[in-house]
Amino acid sequence: MLDGECNPDRPPLPRDAGTHRATSVDFPVCVVLPAGGTGERTGLQTPKQFWSFLERPLISYTIDAFERVSWIQDVVVVVAKENLDQMSGIVQRFGHRKVRVVTGGSTRHRSIYNGVQALAEDRPEVVIIHDAVRPFVEEDFLSKITLAAKEHGAAGAIRPLVSTVIATTSEGFLDHSLERAKYRASETPQGFTYEVISQAYQRSSESDLEFGTECLHLALQHCHINAKLIPGPPTLWKVTYRWDLAAAGSIIKEPMLQSACVVSGDSVHAATLITALQKALHMKLHVVTDLSAEKHTFLLKEWNYIQVSVDVCCRSDIEALVTQLEVEKRVLQYPLVIIWLCLNTSNGKSCSTTEGKKPAITDLASSLEHKKILLYGIQLPTPQDSDCWETSVLKVSDLISVLVKERSPALVGQLLQA
Amino acid sequence: MLDGECNPDRPPLPRDAGTHRATSVDFPVCVVLPAGGTGERTGLQTPKQFWSFLERPLISYTIDAFERVSWIQDVVVVVAKENLDQMSGIVQRFGHRKVRVVTGGSTRHRSIYNGVQALAEDRPEVVIIHDAVRPFVEEDFLSKITLAAKEHGAAGAIRPLVSTVIATTSEGFLDHSLERAKYRASETPQGFTYEVISQAYQRSSESDLEFGTECLHLALQHCHINAKLIPGPPTLWKVTYRWDLAAAGSIIKEPMLQSACVVSGDSVHAATLITALQKALHMKLHVVTDLSAEKHTFLLKEWNYIQVSVDVCCRSDIEALVTQLEVEKRVLQYPLVIIWLCLNTSNGKSCSTTEGKKPAITDLASSLEHKKILLYGIQLPTPQDSDCWETSVLKVSDLISVLVKERSPALVGQLLQA
Repeated sequence: MLDGECNPDRPPLPRDAGTHRATSVDFPVCVVLPAGGTGERTGLQTPKQFWSFLERPLISYTIDAFERVSWIQDVVVVVAKENLDQMSGIVQRFGHRKVRVVTGGSTRHRSIYNGVQALAEDRPEVVIIHDAVRPFVEEDFLSKITLAAKEHGAAGAIRPLVSTVIATTSEGFLDHSLERAKYRASETPQGFTYEVISQAYQRSSESDLEFGTECLHLALQHCHINAKLIPGPPTLWKVTYRWDLAAAGSIIKEPMLQSACVVSGDSVHAATLITALQKALHMKLHVVTDLSAEKHTFLLKEWNYIQVSVDVCCRSDIEALVTQLEVEKRVLQYPLVIIWLCLNTSNGKSCSTTEGKKPAITDLASSLEHKKILLYGIQLPTPQDSDCWETSVLKVSDLISVLVKERSPALVGQLLQA
Repeated sequence: MLDGECNPDRPPLPRDAGTHRATSVDFPVCVVLPAGGTGERTGLQTPKQFWSFLERPLISYTIDAFERVSWIQDVVVVVAKENLDQMSGIVQRFGHRKVRVVTGGSTRHRSIYNGVQALAEDRPEVVIIHDAVRPFVEEDFLSKITLAAKEHGAAGAIRPLVSTVIATTSEGFLDHSLERAKYRASETPQGFTYEVISQAYQRSSESDLEFGTECLHLALQHCHINAKLIPGPPTLWKVTYRWDLAAAGSIIKEPMLQSACVVSGDSVHAATLITALQKALHMKLHVVTDLSAEKHTFLLKEWNYIQVSVDVCCRSDIEALVTQLEVEKRVLQYPLVIIWLCLNTSNGKSCSTTEGKKPAITDLASSLEHKKILLYGIQLPTPQDSDCWETSVLKVSDLISVLVKERSPALVGQLLQA
């Protein structure tokens, strides 16, 4: 018997409570991501793991959550045969580096088993099993699950029950209700030593593989491992229904609404405007004059840029910003927003219109769209009287908020009036 | 003992399977809506029942779902003392006609008990108990619950379990997992005869009222009533977390994305444009020349209106439309969208701009905003060559989609370019 192999006929060894607990993961870990679902429950034709948000499928967000974790080696994505090409396309388009795509079976357990078998040569210390439709898992929690799996053989995320669970009679009447406090919902991620999960599946019956859904149960039944249960954050919730996709979208967008980097130039008028916006906006504005000097603070991290121009055309400034973003490989992954804020202090011709009818921003915007850069314009009238100016500032603030929040491709290239 | 009163010492009488089953509700029904929650789980300061979507609080949508049902007499909303004024304000602002607001207790059961006691004089045949944060309940399902409650004394909505339910050991390890097929999640609405629910609460102990959460359990424990369980639609799900609010929003908006009424005028150019839009848009366009003649088909039901103007200013047409909507009391409840689609076939001055700098639409739009009418403009360039025209039509289609979908107050009064 291999070292660490579990024996179904023998209960696990008692563990010494005094043993040293590792606090960081320093051993090989791989992930199996079953994504064979057909999306029946969402009522959509596309299975929900392939549903797109900000032009990126949900499963790519989930993969990203694992690729960001340095100590995770491989992510085995298990998809239905008919989705193999689509999945390979996603891996290529979004530059996923740790992914292997394998074909699934007819049930959840058969698909996971295929994924585990694909790791036979790697034999990682721990295998994490997660759902493709839970994209918000974070490193901190993955590390808890992984360390507990290494220590106890198996570990799984739990959440409190949202509803009372009741047992029904065969005639459809209430039999009894469970005491909510004694039970938990079992969620993913779950972690297993490679030995435990592979043995659990090898010892599973056809009936287990056909009708079961719970990996922790297989580990208990076939390897006598009582998994360690770890309370997970509410964001572990699974995208199940059509409207959950809107909820997932709002979580994906959340980090994109926190702040914007303002490239201000050195005009006094711009400074006044920015000060007013800092008060009106519910997002943090980081003001810089030269973005390239602030590369690591903003160019690598910021989702939103506001380029202010006063009485001049700043097309070349925006082009320069785009070049910098391209150099730093910030484009193509998530849509970045650039807002071109045109402030006219004179009564002269606006910087934002060319001789034709379309404003200059329209052409520039359409050339940037395929780079996943969403360019919008906002034009402010001359600040003649202060009442009108205050209204305009509030309007600019509302417009910035909505553009940053919606990130709508349809509005790209519009020159909005404040 | 009153007729129909339940006796805790005697099991319910066996029912004759052959008795006539009513298929419509023809007896008095009232609703108790506990809304005392503080929204801790959402992480928002405002309790989630008061969170606004399209400038209307969630609880107002829930109340609306009951007020639409003709056979429901009263809705008793139970709120925490500190929210009494806010709730009364909501009842007034949204013209709720069937609502009584009462003060809640320190727990869910105490609040519901207060609500039931408030119905002591009415003594409705059936009391429906529902959560304020499940706004999507429909008449058909309410009627099933009500009739089953009348027949069996108690009835409740159930849903399949989304996750496996597991029992934990006191040390936080897996003890066993429940067979998912045998259990259900208990949801609301629930229905009780007035006798059953009032007796159940009268016989409840302090401990029941303090720690319990399940009304069906009280009916079983204190009145020996095994509630009839009825599978509910997935939309019964409870708004629990912050991101659920985005999900709720997407359901609220769904009926608003299905169609638009187009007031076309009689221009050939407008007809060509509309035909092209009908192909490009994922929503149904109902084209009319005179809206007042189609009052019952569109004026009372439609969420979106598109007013097409060709080379002329249609400000007066829009004002006439608004007057009609006001007469039909369509304003103030939900935000209606009007899109002013300006098509210029000549090279003359656009109808949409006045002599000043701001387009005419801006003033009109701000005068409509307090009526909850969102007015947006879209301007099409001269259809000179067909390639450019096709691109413009697609752009118009994208813009209409996004305006109708987002219903953004920030974009009101903008004249967008196609």
